[in-house]
Amino acid sequence: MLTKHDVSIPLDVPSSMHDEYVANFLSLTRSTGKLVLFAGDQKIEHLNSDFYGQGIADEDSDPEHLFKIAYHGTVGCFAAQMGLIARYGRQYPGIGYLVKLNSKTNLVETKQRDPVSRQIWTVDDVVRFKKESGLRVLAVGYTLYLGSEYEADMLTEAGRLISEAHKHGLLTVLWIYPRGKSVLFEKDPHIIAGACGTALCLGSDFVKVNYPSKYGFDSREMFKEAIKAAGNTGVVCAGGSKKGVRDFLQDVHDQIYYAGGKGNATGRNVHQRPLDEAIRLCDAISAITYGGWDVDGAMRVYEGHEQFKL
Amino acid sequence: MLTKHDVSIPLDVPSSMHDEYVANFLSLTRSTGKLVLFAGDQKIEHLNSDFYGQGIADEDSDPEHLFKIAYHGTVGCFAAQMGLIARYGRQYPGIGYLVKLNSKTNLVETKQRDPVSRQIWTVDDVVRFKKESGLRVLAVGYTLYLGSEYEADMLTEAGRLISEAHKHGLLTVLWIYPRGKSVLFEKDPHIIAGACGTALCLGSDFVKVNYPSKYGFDSREMFKEAIKAAGNTGVVCAGGSKKGVRDFLQDVHDQIYYAGGKGNATGRNVHQRPLDEAIRLCDAISAITYGGWDVDGAMRVYEGHEQFKL
Amino acid sequence: MLTKHDVSIPLDVPSSMHDEYVANFLSLTRSTGKLVLFAGDQKIEHLNSDFYGQGIADEDSDPEHLFKIAYHGTVGCFAAQMGLIARYGRQYPGIGYLVKLNSKTNLVETKQRDPVSRQIWTVDDVVRFKKESGLRVLAVGYTLYLGSEYEADMLTEAGRLISEAHKHGLLTVLWIYPRGKSVLFEKDPHIIAGACGTALCLGSDFVKVNYPSKYGFDSREMFKEAIKAAGNTGVVCAGGSKKGVRDFLQDVHDQIYYAGGKGNATGRNVHQRPLDEAIRLCDAISAITYGGWDVDGAMRVYEGHEQFKL
Amino acid sequence: MLTKHDVSIPLDVPSSMHDEYVANFLSLTRSTGKLVLFAGDQKIEHLNSDFYGQGIADEDSDPEHLFKIAYHGTVGCFAAQMGLIARYGRQYPGIGYLVKLNSKTNLVETKQRDPVSRQIWTVDDVVRFKKESGLRVLAVGYTLYLGSEYEADMLTEAGRLISEAHKHGLLTVLWIYPRGKSVLFEKDPHIIAGACGTALCLGSDFVKVNYPSKYGFDSREMFKEAIKAAGNTGVVCAGGSKKGVRDFLQDVHDQIYYAGGKGNATGRNVHQRPLDEAIRLCDAISAITYGGWDVDGAMRVYEGHEQFKL
Amino acid sequence: MLTKHDVSIPLDVPSSMHDEYVANFLSLTRSTGKLVLFAGDQKIEHLNSDFYGQGIADEDSDPEHLFKIAYHGTVGCFAAQMGLIARYGRQYPGIGYLVKLNSKTNLVETKQRDPVSRQIWTVDDVVRFKKESGLRVLAVGYTLYLGSEYEADMLTEAGRLISEAHKHGLLTVLWIYPRGKSVLFEKDPHIIAGACGTALCLGSDFVKVNYPSKYGFDSREMFKEAIKAAGNTGVVCAGGSKKGVRDFLQDVHDQIYYAGGKGNATGRNVHQRPLDEAIRLCDAISAITYGGWDVDGAMRVYEGHEQFKL
Repeated sequence: MLTKHDVSIPLDVPSSMHDEYVANFLSLTRSTGKLVLFAGDQKIEHLNSDFYGQGIADEDSDPEHLFKIAYHGTVGCFAAQMGLIARYGRQYPGIGYLVKLNSKTNLVETKQRDPVSRQIWTVDDVVRFKKESGLRVLAVGYTLYLGSEYEADMLTEAGRLISEAHKHGLLTVLWIYPRGKSVLFEKDPHIIAGACGTALCLGSDFVKVNYPSKYGFDSREMFKEAIKAAGNTGVVCAGGSKKGVRDFLQDVHDQIYYAGGKGNATGRNVHQRPLDEAIRLCDAISAITYGGWDVDGAMRVYEGHEQFKL
Repeated sequence: MLTKHDVSIPLDVPSSMHDEYVANFLSLTRSTGKLVLFAGDQKIEHLNSDFYGQGIADEDSDPEHLFKIAYHGTVGCFAAQMGLIARYGRQYPGIGYLVKLNSKTNLVETKQRDPVSRQIWTVDDVVRFKKESGLRVLAVGYTLYLGSEYEADMLTEAGRLISEAHKHGLLTVLWIYPRGKSVLFEKDPHIIAGACGTALCLGSDFVKVNYPSKYGFDSREMFKEAIKAAGNTGVVCAGGSKKGVRDFLQDVHDQIYYAGGKGNATGRNVHQRPLDEAIRLCDAISAITYGGWDVDGAMRVYEGHEQFKL
Repeated sequence: MLTKHDVSIPLDVPSSMHDEYVANFLSLTRSTGKLVLFAGDQKIEHLNSDFYGQGIADEDSDPEHLFKIAYHGTVGCFAAQMGLIARYGRQYPGIGYLVKLNSKTNLVETKQRDPVSRQIWTVDDVVRFKKESGLRVLAVGYTLYLGSEYEADMLTEAGRLISEAHKHGLLTVLWIYPRGKSVLFEKDPHIIAGACGTALCLGSDFVKVNYPSKYGFDSREMFKEAIKAAGNTGVVCAGGSKKGVRDFLQDVHDQIYYAGGKGNATGRNVHQRPLDEAIRLCDAISAITYGGWDVDGAMRVYEGHEQFKL
Repeated sequence: MLTKHDVSIPLDVPSSMHDEYVANFLSLTRSTGKLVLFAGDQKIEHLNSDFYGQGIADEDSDPEHLFKIAYHGTVGCFAAQMGLIARYGRQYPGIGYLVKLNSKTNLVETKQRDPVSRQIWTVDDVVRFKKESGLRVLAVGYTLYLGSEYEADMLTEAGRLISEAHKHGLLTVLWIYPRGKSVLFEKDPHIIAGACGTALCLGSDFVKVNYPSKYGFDSREMFKEAIKAAGNTGVVCAGGSKKGVRDFLQDVHDQIYYAGGKGNATGRNVHQRPLDEAIRLCDAISAITYGGWDVDGAMRVYEGHEQFKL
Repeated sequence: MLTKHDVSIPLDVPSSMHDEYVANFLSLTRSTGKLVLFAGDQKIEHLNSDFYGQGIADEDSDPEHLFKIAYHGTVGCFAAQMGLIARYGRQYPGIGYLVKLNSKTNLVETKQRDPVSRQIWTVDDVVRFKKESGLRVLAVGYTLYLGSEYEADMLTEAGRLISEAHKHGLLTVLWIYPRGKSVLFEKDPHIIAGACGTALCLGSDFVKVNYPSKYGFDSREMFKEAIKAAGNTGVVCAGGSKKGVRDFLQDVHDQIYYAGGKGNATGRNVHQRPLDEAIRLCDAISAITYGGWDVDGAMRVYEGHEQFKL
């Protein structure tokens, strides 16, 4: 368990905000330095496709499902747009929130036009919101498409908001996806590593990237390049395509304990399940990430044979 | 009848504005939680095509016609651009107004260029206008074209103005239309549901969408996906194409009592009629929406055989 | 003759500015509610083509010619860019000015790129200028190209500056021209009517449009649609192509007394004449517009047989 | 010799700045109302092509050469970017400076993309710089490409900065070049005249244009249209292509005393010569412009047989 | 050794900041007027390609490697993005930092779209950061692509930030690369000279350019044009392609002592080596630059046979 003396504070956090930053860091990482991010920003990013349809639990069509999971499951934070949090947060004050500051839909495809996602809310908005609402807002997040023709706009917004967030003691997570006509393989390990280095140079505390993938190579090994490139920015891995739970948990374990990642960010793989199962999957992920359990132990949590609580 | 204790207040409304928000909500929804929105923003959106020509009452060519309807008919609010309200509002102080903050004409078609509509007035302008004019401004509105190449600009403006409006206790309605070269079917139920989820994530109190339509499917059933996706954001349905009044009122009824919508937004279907008939149609819609009447009862109101007053 | 009690004040004029607005309205309309606008913004709009060449009086090549006409002739206001007014206004303090806030040249044609004209001076600049200079600045003006791909930029600037102008008691005139690749017939009566409705929804006091024209139809009749669509925004008509003076004055008369327009806006048709003739033509236009004279009477003024003075 | 009572002050100069404006005007024009502008902004505009190569004096490759000429030669002002002035100005406090506020390189040609040059420093920057440095900054300048697809951006910047400059008593010079795909002949007399009228409407004190040129016509006569169109904005002529000194001085003389121009703006034609010759050429130009000498007299100055000093 | 009386202070540095500017200048140049810039901004500029792969030391994959080199090696400053500095600076307070204010990735190639890099952090951000962190921030840097279609945006940002930096006593380095569809040879000596003149006109203290290269010509001679064009702006040369150390050091020596440059800016040529070797290479470069040693002496430093310490 980390104590407040173990937390490394970036220099763009003013001294008056050191305590705030440390408290937020310890909350977000459950005093482990690692992060289980439960991602709930897909209602804009993927419209309703992640919430309704074959293979998706009926409960998932109710937006409150996300809050129930985040409330009952063990997670570091629940990431969502400020509007969504504003509309349900009153009933779920206990959750640790990350306010996602930008989002785009998936209607315009890259072949039509390179992706761009612009900042909707400012850090000042978030700070005011946090103060007025009394919610436990721990961090802000932003998605950035490296290699897009609009990359410059997003690099600027990302860099500035990190600096602003730190000024107020908030933590930051960048979602970085290499995407655009210039990017042939979005999961190329070398480009993913570049994304991690970019997050570091922008000063982010965490970066969420896709798990690298290259034909004929071991993703676990490939991932090490990214982890190193990120330096002291923590790398968390997107859930990846839906597969069996054991395989998924194995990935979660490998990403941290084999490659050196700092956690994971999972969305649909969790919320498309019925509430009880979704909670157990969160707990299983947290057992690995926060508890250091092995995959067998995590499976027992997922299957309800054992409980993991921090 | 809702009382002030029944109103759920979003967390981005500061506590000093709780009373204001609640009062506006109860006014707008006539203490029912539902909304009859009378839309009068077409003079820019469709230029003069909705106000002059075959099948349109002569009276509709006079802009004051809109105010007369809104004044004498039973509606939750009359939505129009701030300029229009500024020029006639003095004679119609009793109306509940929604200030539409953006508008575009229909001259440039999507095949030439994806649609974009930019914010003209700020929420601060509206707040000052409300204070200076003494008008009952209850809400602001904004149109957003999901799937347009300019989507990012509009998402940003929409999210920010909702946050600003709530800061001042004003309610918000987003008009969301999926439109652009990337959108094949604008009324696709799944995309309409995505639009509703987007409105929720932006924090809007209400969203106005088109009634979903898919060949071989029942719109009433299809609409449920959208209602669910919207969560606690109220969904109101655009009037749709002009058909017989009974069919129209049936749709209005189904949207609320079959699918779970929160009301409707009607423009030309009302104002293209002579004043007296337009007023009776408003009352008929309100009889269903606010009074919970059935279609037969509403028809009697429309035909002048019975009166509905709140 | 209107008195201050007859002036209808838009609600976006704050009460502290009511007297100012009323005084400006009465000055601009010479207490008649109608407007003779002498347009002198063509030095940017048409470069030097309106001021030099065959059929243009030599005196017109001197920019001061415009000020002499405005000073000696009877007009409601002289419209020009702030820079031009700043350089000659000291010698002509008696003129009622309208500051034209934007302008573009005619070098780039629509077939190359849709037209865009951006705001150069802010209303705050004008208010400061008015105060510092002591000039009688009564109004501001702005040109807007509906149907251009840049329409959104101009709608936003127009709506905002009207709101700003009213905040300071200044009146507003929008020049609205449907123009762009999307517009087939710029003088189509239906689109002109749409332009008038747009001006109303933006809150403008006056709108200047081209006289509608459609093959086989009577422009006087066609113009009525526009007048109605404008509601209580006054419609003034651009001079149209240069023809015989009697025909021109007949148009001026018809536009007001047949169709219900509120006046006219004339530029080159006036200033391309020698000073004395230009003054007499202004007076003739004013005799019709402000004095309610018939065309024969106005012709006598133009020919110097009779005088019209307010 | 003009005295302070002869200076016509534009109305956008506030009364508190009248003395400042008058003093700057008299300095800039050496109390003659005319202007010899020594242009030194080509290091960005033409990169190093004007300063190094065949036919260019070696001394010209040292940027200080420009300052030496401006210091020892007789000129109204030396025009350069603020950065350049900041780096050499301490040694040359006696020079009258014009801060050129924008610049572009010549790498992107019009056939690739229409020209655009954006404002780098604000008038406030210049005012602070003047105060801090103690330099004799008399005026600001800006280049504007009429007919470019980016014309609107530059018209806005130009109009605003003139208004700002006058607010602080600074004079203004616009460089206006018709350029872009829409412009067939950049030196067409009619378009040049339009450029001059545009400068007037933007409120500039001076405008620098190219000497009109049209096959089969006399430039001196053609130039008169421009002079008239400029009204009380002074027209200064760009140096034109390098020819014999006598021919050049003849042009300088004709532009003022035949056509009515207010001076000239010369850059490479001066600085590409060795220091001593460059100084003598400046003096020769000033002998004509400020002293009213004839070409023979000016040639004697250029050849060192006679001196011209104010 | 320069003393504070030898430092030439640009006029845009206010007198209250003279001491600060002088101190920063002496620190940055180690009281020699010359500059060894250690460039560490490639994690965004080149993603991970400079830090991982064949021929690159393993240590270089750890971002802290850069800080170790800058700390133990002799350099004038270490240039990196503010985010990177914020995350490691606490452990390396002794380093002299240059905050690189913009960066782009290399994913979008010029043939797809002309390069643009936008300012991420403002000078105010840097000043606050410096004050809060206590780090020795001496300068700011910015990359500018002359000849890009986005040149105007970057010229504006560059000019303004230099003026801002000087206002706070910070020094400036511009990285200027001619690049874009309009640029055929990026290392053309004449264009490189133009880049240097541009930096001067923008007011920068230093400019980093590529070493000119032209088939059949001697780069050392060619470089003189650039040095002259830069005037009193110091020219530092980018490392160029990796070649043998002796050849590299010969270039470093020639650039300063043959052509008159003010130093060098080296990145990967240093950091791709193991720590100890990288430090020795820094020291060797500094021996030449700061100490005036010859290449043989510098080679002895690089090979560890001799030490160079300031």
